[in-house]
Parts: sequence; C-alpha cells; structure tokens
Amino acid sequence: MITSLRNPRIAGVRRLRRTRERKVKGRTPVEGPFLLEEAIRAGVIIHEVYAAPDDATTAATCERIGIEQTLVSNEVLASLASSVSPRGPVAVVSVPASAAIRPMDSIVMWDVSDPGNAGTIIRSAAAFGFQVIATAGCVDLWSPKVVRAGVGGHFRTPLVDTTELSPQVLMGAGLRAFVAAAGSSTSPTEMVETVGPVAIIVGNEAHGVPEAVREGSGAVPISLTMPGGTESLNVGVAASILMYLRTGE
Amino acid sequence: MITSLRNPRIAGVRRLRRTRERKVKGRTPVEGPFLLEEAIRAGVIIHEVYAAPDDATTAATCERIGIEQTLVSNEVLASLASSVSPRGPVAVVSVPASAAIRPMDSIVMWDVSDPGNAGTIIRSAAAFGFQVIATAGCVDLWSPKVVRAGVGGHFRTPLVDTTELSPQVLMGAGLRAFVAAAGSSTSPTEMVETVGPVAIIVGNEAHGVPEAVREGSGAVPISLTMPGGTESLNVGVAASILMYLRTGE
Repeated sequence: MITSLRNPRIAGVRRLRRTRERKVKGRTPVEGPFLLEEAIRAGVIIHEVYAAPDDATTAATCERIGIEQTLVSNEVLASLASSVSPRGPVAVVSVPASAAIRPMDSIVMWDVSDPGNAGTIIRSAAAFGFQVIATAGCVDLWSPKVVRAGVGGHFRTPLVDTTELSPQVLMGAGLRAFVAAAGSSTSPTEMVETVGPVAIIVGNEAHGVPEAVREGSGAVPISLTMPGGTESLNVGVAASILMYLRTGE
Repeated sequence: MITSLRNPRIAGVRRLRRTRERKVKGRTPVEGPFLLEEAIRAGVIIHEVYAAPDDATTAATCERIGIEQTLVSNEVLASLASSVSPRGPVAVVSVPASAAIRPMDSIVMWDVSDPGNAGTIIRSAAAFGFQVIATAGCVDLWSPKVVRAGVGGHFRTPLVDTTELSPQVLMGAGLRAFVAAAGSSTSPTEMVETVGPVAIIVGNEAHGVPEAVREGSGAVPISLTMPGGTESLNVGVAASILMYLRTGE
C-alpha cells in the first residue's frame, strides 16, 4: 500500500491536474465508482486504479476487468482527488481521441471557460442525444472538474475538440448553424423545426459568442423569451433549454 | 488606505464568509460593480464599500449613494473576495429578510447543497419571473458563492427561506405542488397548463427529493423526456427547463 504523498507514481497522477500534462500524456484522472464504471462501459483504456484498502467495490471492479488495483492510504487518495471528500477510486484513463464532426444535432461551446458549465453542457448533451463540439478556447473538456460535472456524459456522447471552427465549417459538415444571442428577436422556433441536424452555438460566460460568428456568417441568432425581464441565464442553462426544445417534447 | 491583512475591519469582512457569522450579523459581502449596482437598485442597505484606490467607478458610485468608501490595497481587496481575480469593490450589505410565500409561480429548492446550482436556480427564477423558496437544508442563499452565481437574481425576485416546508404548506399558500422526479412517467404538461400558481420542487444533487415529499403528499411527480436515455440532468438545468416550460414560450 502506498502511504507516502511523495511517491513518484502518486506525484505523477497529481500532475495530471495540469492541462499541459494531460495533453502530453494523453491521460486524465477519473474519480469515483460511477465514472469508473462509465469509462469501462465506453471501452476507454484504464491504465491505473488507486483505491482505499477497505474499498471492496473497486476491488471487485478491478478483478472483473482484469486490472491490478493499487492500494493507497486515505490521505494519499484525498491528495489525488479534486473533490473535497473523495469516496471512491481514482483511475487514470486514456483521453479518447476527438471525434470528427458527424451530421447530428450538436451543441457548440464557443470558448466556454468555466469547468462546471462545460461539464453541465456535456451532461445535458448526453441526456438529449446531442454531439458536443468545443473550440480551442474552451476549458479542457477532460479536466477533472469538467469530467466530474459531466457525470458520465463524456462517455456517452461524441466530443469534438477543434482548433479551427466557424459557422462555415459547421455548415460544410451538414449542420444548420444557430447562435444563442441574448436579446436577439428571433425565437427558437425555426431551430426547433429545422429538418436535418442543427448546431446550436453558445458562447463564453463573459463575452458571449464573437461578433464575427454572430453577424454575417449565415448562422441564425436565436434567444429565449424571459418574462422576468433580465437577459441573463447561465450558459449551461441556456444551452440545455435550447437542446431540450429541439428534442420536441 | 488599509494595507494590512490583519486590520480588524478587514478580518471582520473575511469572517462573513462563514454561514454562522452571516446569520449572526445579518450581513453578507457582495462582490463586483454589477452586484453592487443591483443591490443599490433593490434598496438593500449598503454598510461598507471596500475598493482599490484606482477604482474610479466605485468612487463615483459611493458619491452618488452618499456612502464613504474605504480604500484598500489590491492585496487586501483580493483577501476579501471569493473570486480569484477580483476587479471591483467588495461591499457589505444587509441580508434582506426572508419574504413570506406569495401566491405566484415558485421554484422550491429542497436541500440543494451546491452553491453554483443554488445561484443558477435563483438567476433563472429571476429571468423567468419565479419566486424562490428554499428549505433549511439548502446551502445559505446569501453565501458569497451563491450570490455570485445568482448574477443579481437575489435582488430581482422574492426569496423565501423556510425552516418548515411541506407540499401541504405550499398548497396552503395557494400553490399547486409538482415534484421533479427523474423517471416518473408524467410529462410536465399538467404543470404547464395549471391555472393559478404552481410550485415546482427540485431536490438535493445526490438524494433528490425525499420520498415523503414525492409520494402521498399530493404533489404531482413530473419528469423531462430524455432521448439520450440517461436520466441525469444537473438540478439547476432541470429546474430552469421546467420554469421555462411554465412561461409558455
């Protein structure tokens, strides 16, 4: 059992909290029994599993999938986890390669920077059957905080990480592009009724979607009516409402 | 100008991060120029305003409302703020008294514990014209993190903080009660079409709404259809979608 916080393997897992380290290694930590099961179910490569000695569930899981778990003290486990009170294992898994854009309903995160918001959008996209497309300016989709807020969505829906994105690229992939723009006068009806796949673009928490994407790009601006009079919704909420409307329920 | 982190007034503001201290003092810190303006507009009592010496906007605001600002060093300002890179002032304001339940559309947070989720729900409630009712098991609605995530919603919609809540209490106040329950077979249609005010109850992130509230209380269970097949939405998202549907847009 590893009891030292300075153990080199433990230090290596902790370094995976940094975006750069994750990009170089192509691996990310995944916390808790639920996310480990989701990763296994999705066929993601599991490299290492760190668990507390009294964690019978994780021991059984590791035996089932044929991987040797590494026992660690509770203190070491806590040092690996991003949550305050980790209950389950911390696994190191391969970050799945970014998918290519498919012709299916998509939510596009344009420079979304808050890990909680990005995770919430991925969670909702999986629930509503949407593909997720993220610009290079977004928070790393595989950061532990984003994966935690995604509650398994990362393993249930295609994630596309793209360095070059424009409404033209989306349309070239067969998607009709719409932009969530607070205060635009167009209701979501046209988006909801579009035949064929749509791409709904939502923007950065502070700056929204860049003007070049909103204007003159062929993407249709849409907004939600708010009787309360404020034009302020959390970006994860706005994206989720638009996806829900598209499902036509 | 206050430059010492140990200054007793500064230490007093920092103590307001603790729920107990806020309850005893009846005050909470509010961060940034936007929230300060919202608090002023809502008629909330502003006790103190701490600002950086080069913050001309805050200086003008304080002059306008007739309150003397306290200049502090950037280091002291950062020690007062819960955000990583505070730009604006930190004001200490009176926590408004909890409202009584009014007969209007309401979102009920049943033991919602995450500050970001509670703030998001308050933000959406203000946008959609809903009253917010919170059980005693919720995170403190006036914690700095909740106020920040609320983006002004705290100052735009009635907040009811209640120690004793049940569907019966809601119905006694003239509200028809519905409970968001993943996997229930009832669509939100009845809720949307109800004549007269409704109360939509959403639950704790891990445990949902207690069974005693879900079953046999007269509250109607409702759930959202999710084509992706998972029954997992962030509670702030689920609450916001249900409120949006109720607005009938």
